Amino acid sequence: MERIPILKMGPFLLVSIQVDMHDRLALTLQDDLTSRIVSDHARGVLIDISALEVVDSFIGRMLGNIAAMSRILDAETVVVGMRPAVAITLVELGMSLSGVRTALNVERAMDMLQAAVATSVAAPGSEPVNGHSTD
Amino acid sequence: MERIPILKMGPFLLVSIQVDMHDRLALTLQDDLTSRIVSDHARGVLIDISALEVVDSFIGRMLGNIAAMSRILDAETVVVGMRPAVAITLVELGMSLSGVRTALNVERAMDMLQAAVATSVAAPGSEPVNGHSTD
Repeated sequence: MERIPILKMGPFLLVSIQVDMHDRLALTLQDDLTSRIVSDHARGVLIDISALEVVDSFIGRMLGNIAAMSRILDAETVVVGMRPAVAITLVELGMSLSGVRTALNVERAMDMLQAAVATSVAAPGSEPVNGHSTD
Repeated sequence: MERIPILKMGPFLLVSIQVDMHDRLALTLQDDLTSRIVSDHARGVLIDISALEVVDSFIGRMLGNIAAMSRILDAETVVVGMRPAVAITLVELGMSLSGVRTALNVERAMDMLQAAVATSVAAPGSEPVNGHSTD
């Protein structure tokens, strides 16, 4: 069980973290997730951490990294189900999880992602329509 | 982490089993799941076992139990992401998982459940319309 399963839900990918993360598992998850974003043309990533009673700086950084990688691949990341104690710990650790969006549950996260996708489709600012930025 | 998270996805509940199941964890999952089916008015349960490399008779029985309990509570159960080796083992163990529906991935399972819900709404045979069966 040295892999965290990634479930495809329409245009989004869902990851439920239930086990203690160590270096290698985190790296495997990042690799798997970025590959799946590309292969499945995913527009969003939902990371459920409701099973985690403790989130240390390592996991905090991993979440930030995943969000940053996903953003480069044009997928939004939403962290779901954070426990109150975890939020307290993260702030006390000085980690504000900047760049990571959070939602109370999976349904709200899906709504959030669907709205984000709809907006990016309506306003094609995310596509390099004019080449000024790459000249 | 002595609880497996249950995620609500519309009218369905999603459980991703990633850790070794022992007696107590299985009982907790059954309790949590049946409570959530009732409290969330869930119409279906998706159990993702793609992370499990080995499914023994204990887990096989647990899946059967969950499906039977859910059915009594008017919710369908679909087991998702079974590995080929697991299917071989289950048959060799003499467990055909009768009463448990399976699907290749979460999306297919969702389609299956949505179709099942639509059918049961169209044909209200599942409701005790006439009292002959309880006389």
